[in-house]
Parts: sequence; C-alpha cells; structure tokens
Amino acid sequence: MIVSTSALLDFFLKTRTHTETICKPLQIEDYVVQPIADVSPPKWHLGHTTWFFEDFILKKYKSDYKEFNKQFAFVFNSYYESMGARVVRTDRGNLSRPTVGEVYAYRKYVTSALAKLLQENDSLTELKELIEIGIHHEKQHQELLLTDIKYILGNNPLQPLYSENFNEYQPISNTPKWLPVKEGVYKIGHNDSGFCYDNELGRHNVFLSEYQISSELVTNAEYLKFIEDDGYNQVLLWHSEGWDWIEENNIFAPQYWQNQDGEWYCYQLNGVQKLDLQAPVTHISYYEAFAFAQWKGLRLPTEFEWEIAQSKFDWGQRWEWTESAYLPYPNYTKAPGALGEYNGKFMVSQKTLRGGSVATSDNHTRATYRNFFHPQLRWQFTGLRLAR
Amino acid sequence: MIVSTSALLDFFLKTRTHTETICKPLQIEDYVVQPIADVSPPKWHLGHTTWFFEDFILKKYKSDYKEFNKQFAFVFNSYYESMGARVVRTDRGNLSRPTVGEVYAYRKYVTSALAKLLQENDSLTELKELIEIGIHHEKQHQELLLTDIKYILGNNPLQPLYSENFNEYQPISNTPKWLPVKEGVYKIGHNDSGFCYDNELGRHNVFLSEYQISSELVTNAEYLKFIEDDGYNQVLLWHSEGWDWIEENNIFAPQYWQNQDGEWYCYQLNGVQKLDLQAPVTHISYYEAFAFAQWKGLRLPTEFEWEIAQSKFDWGQRWEWTESAYLPYPNYTKAPGALGEYNGKFMVSQKTLRGGSVATSDNHTRATYRNFFHPQLRWQFTGLRLAR
Amino acid sequence: MIVSTSALLDFFLKTRTHTETICKPLQIEDYVVQPIADVSPPKWHLGHTTWFFEDFILKKYKSDYKEFNKQFAFVFNSYYESMGARVVRTDRGNLSRPTVGEVYAYRKYVTSALAKLLQENDSLTELKELIEIGIHHEKQHQELLLTDIKYILGNNPLQPLYSENFNEYQPISNTPKWLPVKEGVYKIGHNDSGFCYDNELGRHNVFLSEYQISSELVTNAEYLKFIEDDGYNQVLLWHSEGWDWIEENNIFAPQYWQNQDGEWYCYQLNGVQKLDLQAPVTHISYYEAFAFAQWKGLRLPTEFEWEIAQSKFDWGQRWEWTESAYLPYPNYTKAPGALGEYNGKFMVSQKTLRGGSVATSDNHTRATYRNFFHPQLRWQFTGLRLAR
Amino acid sequence: MIVSTSALLDFFLKTRTHTETICKPLQIEDYVVQPIADVSPPKWHLGHTTWFFEDFILKKYKSDYKEFNKQFAFVFNSYYESMGARVVRTDRGNLSRPTVGEVYAYRKYVTSALAKLLQENDSLTELKELIEIGIHHEKQHQELLLTDIKYILGNNPLQPLYSENFNEYQPISNTPKWLPVKEGVYKIGHNDSGFCYDNELGRHNVFLSEYQISSELVTNAEYLKFIEDDGYNQVLLWHSEGWDWIEENNIFAPQYWQNQDGEWYCYQLNGVQKLDLQAPVTHISYYEAFAFAQWKGLRLPTEFEWEIAQSKFDWGQRWEWTESAYLPYPNYTKAPGALGEYNGKFMVSQKTLRGGSVATSDNHTRATYRNFFHPQLRWQFTGLRLAR
Repeated sequence: MIVSTSALLDFFLKTRTHTETICKPLQIEDYVVQPIADVSPPKWHLGHTTWFFEDFILKKYKSDYKEFNKQFAFVFNSYYESMGARVVRTDRGNLSRPTVGEVYAYRKYVTSALAKLLQENDSLTELKELIEIGIHHEKQHQELLLTDIKYILGNNPLQPLYSENFNEYQPISNTPKWLPVKEGVYKIGHNDSGFCYDNELGRHNVFLSEYQISSELVTNAEYLKFIEDDGYNQVLLWHSEGWDWIEENNIFAPQYWQNQDGEWYCYQLNGVQKLDLQAPVTHISYYEAFAFAQWKGLRLPTEFEWEIAQSKFDWGQRWEWTESAYLPYPNYTKAPGALGEYNGKFMVSQKTLRGGSVATSDNHTRATYRNFFHPQLRWQFTGLRLAR
Repeated sequence: MIVSTSALLDFFLKTRTHTETICKPLQIEDYVVQPIADVSPPKWHLGHTTWFFEDFILKKYKSDYKEFNKQFAFVFNSYYESMGARVVRTDRGNLSRPTVGEVYAYRKYVTSALAKLLQENDSLTELKELIEIGIHHEKQHQELLLTDIKYILGNNPLQPLYSENFNEYQPISNTPKWLPVKEGVYKIGHNDSGFCYDNELGRHNVFLSEYQISSELVTNAEYLKFIEDDGYNQVLLWHSEGWDWIEENNIFAPQYWQNQDGEWYCYQLNGVQKLDLQAPVTHISYYEAFAFAQWKGLRLPTEFEWEIAQSKFDWGQRWEWTESAYLPYPNYTKAPGALGEYNGKFMVSQKTLRGGSVATSDNHTRATYRNFFHPQLRWQFTGLRLAR
Repeated sequence: MIVSTSALLDFFLKTRTHTETICKPLQIEDYVVQPIADVSPPKWHLGHTTWFFEDFILKKYKSDYKEFNKQFAFVFNSYYESMGARVVRTDRGNLSRPTVGEVYAYRKYVTSALAKLLQENDSLTELKELIEIGIHHEKQHQELLLTDIKYILGNNPLQPLYSENFNEYQPISNTPKWLPVKEGVYKIGHNDSGFCYDNELGRHNVFLSEYQISSELVTNAEYLKFIEDDGYNQVLLWHSEGWDWIEENNIFAPQYWQNQDGEWYCYQLNGVQKLDLQAPVTHISYYEAFAFAQWKGLRLPTEFEWEIAQSKFDWGQRWEWTESAYLPYPNYTKAPGALGEYNGKFMVSQKTLRGGSVATSDNHTRATYRNFFHPQLRWQFTGLRLAR
Repeated sequence: MIVSTSALLDFFLKTRTHTETICKPLQIEDYVVQPIADVSPPKWHLGHTTWFFEDFILKKYKSDYKEFNKQFAFVFNSYYESMGARVVRTDRGNLSRPTVGEVYAYRKYVTSALAKLLQENDSLTELKELIEIGIHHEKQHQELLLTDIKYILGNNPLQPLYSENFNEYQPISNTPKWLPVKEGVYKIGHNDSGFCYDNELGRHNVFLSEYQISSELVTNAEYLKFIEDDGYNQVLLWHSEGWDWIEENNIFAPQYWQNQDGEWYCYQLNGVQKLDLQAPVTHISYYEAFAFAQWKGLRLPTEFEWEIAQSKFDWGQRWEWTESAYLPYPNYTKAPGALGEYNGKFMVSQKTLRGGSVATSDNHTRATYRNFFHPQLRWQFTGLRLAR
C-alpha cells in the first residue's frame, strides 16, 4: 500500500500519461476497430479505464461531481453487471462516437478531477486504496492495449508497423538446464506489503512432489521442429477440444507466423521480420503449449511449481501457460459489491499463466501474479517453459 | 450515351466531387465502422468506387499505368469474383488501414489519371461507355453512403446528427386518390438514348389487367394505425418468413422509430425528431409493406403496374416496394466478363423497388429504373404505395 | 368438386390407405428420424395428415367428438400459427413418442370418425369441400413421404433400399426438339370444375413473346458434360447466392450422385445404381438448373411459358424448375382463417416448379398446378427443361 | 485385476446382459432419437459398447475373426480419432439403420465370439486386462444409457414414464452436520489391487488446510429457498460464464423441474412427481451448485477434500460437483495408442465430480473415482455437498 499521497498522485499521473504514450504511434482509424471479440478498440480502453475512476470513485467520493457525459457509462462499462446496462462486448467496434478527441477530453477531465479529489482527501485510506486499484486496473489495460493494437495492425492486409523501436524479445542463447526442486510443503500466495489482487491472497501450503523445471523458455527453433515433425497432425498429442480447435480454425503455426515460399516470417510490432530461431516461441494457445510438451515427452509446470522455482530463472518475456486451472485459493473471498466482480467471477474454464511479458507495464507483475485466459486464446504474448 | 468528351469529363469530375461532399460532415472515426454486414464503412465506398475506375479502366487502357497501391484491389473489390481475391464483406469494418487520408489521396490519384486518359483518348467509344458506367456506379454508391452513414450515426447510443440541413421528406398533405389504368398490353423497359443499366433493357410487352394505384405514398399516420391495431401481432397478415423475421428480431415499428413514454420519435439525418404524421412511412421491409397492405385489404403494385402508371403521380421521395420479384426481362443478356456480374447475378430471392429517394443522386433514377433488395432489408429510404 | 358422397368417401378411404401403403417397406426406426430440417419423420407425416382432419373438420363438425389424444395437436401441427402452439419443426426428429403403433391407431380412429361424419352429413357442401382439401393435403404429403424416405435411407451410411420395384424414371431416348410458341396474349390459371388450390385461381391474361421450349427434360448425359466442363467452378455461370451455396456446402454434382473411382453412381429408391445417362437429371437445385442453362447459352422457361406449351410435350417425370418466382396471381385472395395459411404465406423468396414427378400421387398434379420450393432445395424429384 | 478366467467371463456376461435389461422398458422408437448432442440414442450405446470389444480386442486377438458388418465401425466409433472415420456425434440420431434388431444381433455375435476367445486364451493377461477395460467401459455407458433415456422421455411432450419401480433417491431426513478434517499432508489416488482408470493412478501427497464438510447432500428444500430468494437473478452469486448460460437458456430451476400453478413437480424415471423436499437436489449444473454455495456463504469441496473425508459420510446417491478442475495427477501417463484417448484428452475445461449416483452400475464407482463433465451439463444425476 502506497502511504504517501504525493507518491500515489505521481503514480496515478504517470500511469495515465503512459496509457496515452502507448497510443502515440496510432492513426485515428486504429483507435476504432474491433476485428475479433477479444480485441477491444484502443479508444474503448482509453475510455473504460477512465470510466472506472469516474464510476467507482468520483461519483462516490466527490459530492458535487458532474459526469463528463452521462451516456459514457453505457459505452465504457465492460462487464460489471452490477453497474448497469452496457454496450455488448462485440459491439464496441461498431461505435464511431464518441470520437478519439472526445475520449481524450474525457480522460483529461477525469484525471484532473481525480487528482484534485485525492489532494483534498489525502487522509482517506479507503479512497487511496480504490485509486490504487484503479491504477493497477489501468496498467492491466496498458498490456491489452498493446496486444490489441498488434492484432489490429498485424491482421490488416497492409501489415503496418507500430514502432520500429519496439523490441519484442531478448534472444535465448543459453542451453536450457533442468532446475531441480525437492519434494515438500511450500507456501503459495502473496506475502508482502505491496499491492496485489485478491486472487493472490490467502497464502497457504501446497505439497509438491520432486520436480524439475527448465531454465529457459521454449524457442522458435524447438517449436519449428514440432511443426516439421507434423505435430499439428498427430491427433494423440492433443486434447480433444484442442484438436477440434485446430481443425475448425485451420491452425498450423503460432499466430502471426507466415510462410512465404517455404521461409517463415512473423509479424511483430516492429513489422514483418524473418523468424528468429532464438526468440521465445510466442502467441501460442494452451492447446499448442500442451501438445508441444506431449511431443517432447514432457509437461507444463503447475502454477505452484512455477511460483516456488521462479527465483532460479529469469522470467518476464512471455506469459507462461501452466497446467493449472484458474481456481480460487483456499479461503478466497471476493471483495464486496461491484469490485467483487473483478477476478472471482472468471474462476472457471480458464488456465493460469505466470510470469509477465514485454507488453506488461513496469512493476505490474510479480512472482505471485496470476494471469488467466481461456485455453484457445493466443493474441497475448504467451509462451511456455517445460517441466518434468 | 454522352457523346461529348468535355461533357463526360465534367460529369465525371462533378460526380467524384459530390461523393466527397457527402462525407464532409463526418468525423474520421465515422468512416471506419461497419455495424452490420449490409452497411459498409464510408471509407470503403470512397475506395471501392475508385478501385472500379482503376481496375476496369486505367489498368486496361493506360499502358504505363502504375497502381496507387497494389494491395488496394484486395481491400476494395466488392464482389467481383472474377476480379480476384478480396476482403470478405463482413471484415470491411475491421480494417483501420488504409487511413482516410490515404483513401482521399488514392481518389485524387485515380481521378486525375482518369481525366488525363479520357482527354488523351477522346474518340474511344468503348472507353467512354465504361467511364459512364463507372460514374453511374459511383452515383449508386452515393446513395448507399448516405444510408450507411445514417445507420452508423443513428444506431450509435449518442445519436449524433449528420446535418441540420438534410431534409428527409416533403409532407404529404393531399388526400390519396385512386388512379385507374385500363386493361391492355403495355410496353415495359428502357426506350430512349440516355444511360440505363442492362436490367432495364429488352423492352417488351406485358399484359396488365385493369387496376388502380394510389396517388400518394402511405404516411406515418396511416402506418401508426396499423401499429395501434396490433398489426405486428396478427399472424395472418404476414408471410411465414416475415413473421419469423419480426419474432426473431423483435420488430414492432419501422427502423429508427423510438417510443419514449408513449410518444413516437424517429432518428433522421438531421437528428432525433418527433414523428411527423404527414411524412411518408420510411425504413420498412417488404414484409412490413406487405402486411400493411393486407391489413388494408389492398396490395402492392407490381413493378409493371408502377412503370405504366408512374406518369400520373409524383415519385422520388421513397423507394417503393413492389410485389414483383427481381427477375430478368425476356431476352436479358449479361454483359461479357466481370461487368456481367453487375446485375444479373442478383436476380434471385430479391424484390424490385421502383422510384427513387431523397438519398438518390440527382438524375440517377428514372421511370424504368429497377432497384432491388432482399425482403427483410430496411436501412434504405424505403416506403410503399398501395394498389388494388 | 366431387358431388357424390360415396365417391368422396371412396376417394378419402383410398387416399388414407395409400399413405400407409407407401410406408409398408419401412422399419419402425425409419419412421422416427429427421436428418435435416426439411425432411420430416414419416411418423410425423402420418400424424400430421390425420391431425388436419381432426382439427379442421372433426372438432368443428362433430359435436360430441372426443380427441384421440389432446396433446397430439401440439405434436402434429405443422405451421398453422393460428391453430396454436406446436413442436418446432427441427424438433420433430427428437420425439420417440407417440410410437408408430399409436400413430396408426390415431389414423384408424380419425379415419373411421371422419367416414362416419361424412355419411351422416352427406348434404353439407362446406364439409365436403373441407374433406376434399384434406384429401389433397394428404396426397401432397404422400409425395413428401417418398422424398423424405429417400433422404433418410439414401443418406444413411448403409444405404438400404426402399423397394426393388420402385422405378424412378423412363429413359429419354428422343432427340430434343424445339417447340415454338407464337407471341400473344394467353390465358393462365385453372379453368375447369375439378379441384385446384387457391394459388391456381384467378385466371388471367399474360403476354408472351415468341419462344421455344424443349420437347425433353435435360438428361444425365447432358448434365455430365456440364460437370466435365467444370461448370461447378465457373463463377460467371452462377447467381451470387448460388455460388455461395455451392462453396459452403461443397456441392459438385446433383444430390445422391456418388463418384467411386471415376465411375458415377446414384442412390435411388431401388438402391445404388450406375448412373443411367438417359435418365432425366434429378435432385438439382434451382441454382444448378440456372447455371446449367447459362452454360448452354439458354434459359429456363417461365411458369407461364411452361403452362401454355405443356400440351405439346410429355411431362410428369420431374418437377421442372422455372424462372418464375412464386407470386400471387392478380386478384389472388387467401381463404379466410387458418386455411388461408395454406399457400399465400409462402409467396416470397421461392421459385415455382411445374409438372409433377414419379413421386407425385395419382391424379394429384395438373397443367395449372404450382409447386414451389426455395432455390437451394433439391431433395424433391426436381429436373429441368430448357427454353430460348 | 480379476485373475480367474471364469470370474471374468461371468463378469463380462452379466454386464452384457445388464445393459440389455436397462433397455427392456423401451419402445423401438426410443432407441433411435438424439434430442441434444450430449444425449446419444440408446441404440448407439448398445452398438458402441459392442464395437469397443470388436475393434480393440476381437480384430486383434482372434486371427480368423470376421466382422459382423464392416460399416459398423464407422457408425459406432465414438471419438477415437486414431481408430478412423466415424459418424459425427450430432448425426447419431439421424440414423434409422442399423435397426434395433440388427444391433441386438450384433451384440449377440460379439458377446459370443468374445466369450469363446477368452475361453481359448485363458492365460493371456494382456487380453484379460483389455476385456476388463471393455467391461468397465460398458458399465460407464450403462449410466449414460439411463440418463439419456431419462432425457429422451422426460423432454417428450407426452412425458412417458420409464418404469414405476425406478426409485431415484433415498430421502434425506438427518440434519446436516459439519465433519471436521485436520490440516495435513494426505495421500490421494487409487491404492489397492482392484480395477481403476488411469486418471486415478499416481498416488501422491496433497496438503489440505483444515476444513469441514457437510454430512449430507443439499436437499430440494434448501435449493427451493435459493430460488425463492431470487438466487437466479442475483448476478453477484454467479460466474460470468454461468450468468451468460442462465440468461441465454432461460434457466430458473434444476432440469426436469416444472412449475404448474405455483406448485413444483419434477419428471423422474417413474413419471412426473410432486417435488419431494427431502430428496437431494438433482440435475443441476456446476454453475448452479457454485451459485447456491455462494448464496449460503459457503463453498464446494475440492476433489481432494472429498476423497479424504468420504469415509465419514454416506455417498453414492448423486454425483457431487467439486471445485476442482479435471486435471492430470502428477506423473500421469496416458496408455499407449488408441486406449490412451480414453481419459487424458478430456483434461481441460471440465470439472471433477465425485461419488456416484442411483444410475451408476453396481460396484462401478469407488472413493478414488473421478467423473468429469463440462460445467453447464446437468442431464446426469448431479448434486452437491457443501464445505467451508
């Protein structure tokens, strides 16, 4: 918990600015489209993170607060059923208004109102906690902004680049080593005074059998061997659902890979590039991660194995699929009211990912952070690390 | 057929300019979205009409022609299967690039190249005929531009207006009269030297029994009585398909009608307005037009009855649904090659509409003009006139 | 109109018996399934034709009539919205009960009650007219029974035969001749004292330009040439909707055709047979009929051309697709009440077929009979005849 | 593992007979239909369990074995991708052939061939193990047979009963007690010489925090209070997916519950009965079980908590939803080849259920048995037990 008001204010303002910095390279048109349901228009992210501050904080704590535009709550609510009606998710890309300019004006209005509110109530702990949640919420959306922008540009037939300077990875040049962990009872969950989400709380014991985890992420070189060994056509490597998914969607390589005359390329935020064999394999679904591990005769780690071993290796380039389902920790309790919708209501049918990625905002992830996605999704910077 | 090169050039340039004038009131964001499959992004219309000149004319007649951008053919082809691959229709709204600015640059480049080509080849009849088709093609898209813009703005929760000066109708103050037509053999189809589409050609005889046609379009006042008499709930008034359509889509009034506390309003290009009872009923499907006529104990005219009687009444405010299916005239033959895809391939499952609308470009429609849409569509300025 | 009560009774009883004769070769299991929405389970046809007599006649004219089972109206109503709730069409094949035995008992009960009613009210013209409609309704379903049985058996991987004795066609050995018809005004529609449906009434004049119509149906030999000339891959031959339909459904030959090692076979009611080149091509959609005619540089006749020329050629082997849409004749009026749902409510989006087929019940079709189906349907015994 | 050949033979024959006994009350029509994708026609279960013995055993171990019908492998394969092509799951109910009689003949043929094979190879351990798997496979399908029959009859508008003698539950008259379990490391997984599936193997340690589990299943009385407290309308009780599921499917009570004039009834295999408040609540989805627990301020047990505590309470009336996702145990390895498709390929997106039900075959379930279904499914005899 951030105690100093000025530190919190600074954190707030920097976060707000950074969101807009991410959007700098965009054309106005790029802010508007939603090529698939999972990808929201950048304009929507800008508005939604602002609405969060307005609806959860300003309308409650600022007695004379006047909404920027009463209809924006309808436009920018995401999924908070308890906060009222909203534009259905798949319609976000059908709205040309409010314009990008109006959304930036909305941001400015709310940022300034919130800064003032904070300065005037610098002793209200509850308020400061809510603001901190709002900041972390916005930092989460910063990562989604980048991955959604990548999808919007990378799936355009013109494949425009986002920025020449965005480097998506550090080459993996080390030979992977097996890092051993002894059998035993280990503590899992968040355990310091810093910020964390509710889903990391409830530190508890977990028994782990002896295991080994790789020191390195799987590389494109290794994944290419899987493709060349016809891994996408060996049914016994796949989950039943995974097999249906690759058949229905005609999947034969990670997202953004393109084969031109036998040569592999991939679209990156810095444009179409020849496939770098030393790069960590990226943009794969859980199904693909699992099938690859089966093919190697190995497996994915559980999220607990990952958390206990993580201090022994470098992480943070890619969100790492784990074998664990996204479930509540023992004694998990949801926050009361609408904020309780934040994490708990997604704890079914999703897989946990650990680590972080090049798109994750600074200081946003940590060893106990639990990310989660449905097993078929791969527009995030996802990768994998093997265990046995 | 336009014989003078300078007249044709003038017609071409004015048409090109007018398309852009229609878009003047738009924000950049409005150019991009596609809220339903039938509605194309304005940006796409701007590019597609340009591609038509580039692909059908410049690339064939200008030996040293250099395409503005080779990938634009993929982006802006509409449905000409024989002209190669293209963005699937429902994906048009998923493309942020090319930007609006690039599309305007594309327009300028092609307009100028075509003007030059025409000036350098002023005796080539075939070329001039193709240019004339291209102009009329663009004029058709001008109407679609307006109706698509209306849908984009009118279905936005903020309901922004397009222009205060756009007047959608002339009030109908005359009491409707029955205009009688005698039984006999009549000539149908285009019959002068002006431009027409292939689907109007093949002037031929049709036998018409004696009939009467109304001097006026049906008004909102009359349609409101149908609603108030529970017309949308009387199954025997409807086609089987029409009934399924209103049930599945929860239809209970024309498109853009809104009921606020018992009062009817409708969204128009000049904003949300109180329903004017003297306005012609607009934005109804064929199913609704048919059910209304059934409820009156009357019927829609056929397109032949309409064509023969049209000199007796004013028309042009609304496209008028007829009872006729859109079918080829006797001895209809498609143009050879890709241009043959223009009309003939749609001659199944659609209904013919006659007349024109406030959104129709100047001098674009005529007494023999055959418009056609699927029976459930109603985002055009459609209306109806009764017969018996 | 049948005036003699005993003749009507005989007609009624023979029709009821014939329906059951059609089902003789079936196993109980064959009565139950519904492999596609268009194909109803035979059990349903048996029950539905019975419900028609019960609901439209017995319940109205027999004061003390006790329904066989009150829930059968829910199970066996087809689409008469005005007659109350019903099992949705696609659920017909999900009902194992009532059993086939119960349905036969229901038939017996209703047949006997209706025979008695008729004998006791032999002077009631209205009643007799309704019974006559019910008989013709059942005769229509006899044809559907046969085509639905063919689909059920022919699409089963075991391809069981229906009956060795069912001969689907007479070979066409004559060379086709062009039969000329002069331009002029002709009378269209039903014009004698026999039974007809409401959609044939309203005899009226139609002007026909000079035309020629083929003396023969198109044969498998001719259609095979279209296939071998790659007709299914020439986009310009097809309607836009037709092209989408063949692409989505992977259509490359008429229904029931099978290519085994380069040799063509087809499933018939008498089992899988080598394709007979002299047989009329069968089980094609309107889209295929149209594309074939385009490929020949010819066209389909309109239903009016067909009706006027039909006395010059043999017909009745196949339902012949026409170019006409299924629309009301001038002055068409629907029967009042639920019977009005019989024909009129389908008069949109369908094509008219003329003639009859080997599956049509005796004396059921006539020169003015108008059959109608959606353009993609081909499980009926459909074929085509060319015109020019 | 069963060592004695005669005991195994007896087990085999009794199992085969019992499957047919389950079907005794059926009409032939009941064997054929598939009202939803999850419910297979009883005929298919009869054939599929037979195909398993034929394809995995007879064809491999009996050198001169002649298949009953070569096409049955295509008809009766379920999902074994590695065993070749098959009828797609949703088409099972579209097949009238083979007839029920032919399927029974097929059963007899295979049963007799397999009995002979076993007698002639009584020392072949591998064979005996395969037969044992085949028996347990058939016992699993016995439960599915019953639940599928219930769905087929219970969703028919006539709601026929299956058998007056089938009693679906024992009333729960005890007041529930909280059974405490101490924190500690516990052993999970199968650990005796009896048969088990591969997903139960790999006995391993699990750390459990202190917890309490209810001695009783939740009853209809308790669930009714949840309904009456508007539990189906309180969004914060539900998972996001669960909420969408109840909204889309209009769910407001457990499956088979019917409200007639304010009185609750439910369809059971012995017909429609007044809701018994002392019966365990049944036919609920995981989503409903979870929402109910949320409403109580309690939770579902994990499958590990259930396994460790199960000796303290009675179980076996209902499959009990747990909070655990269906995942592999540490060191889980799939059987080689097609049998490896049995369990492992479903280990994603499903929830584990523990216990057993009134429909489970005798001696089929056990304390370590792991059943699994997708969270929305509820046509099995599912229920719940609370923990805290």
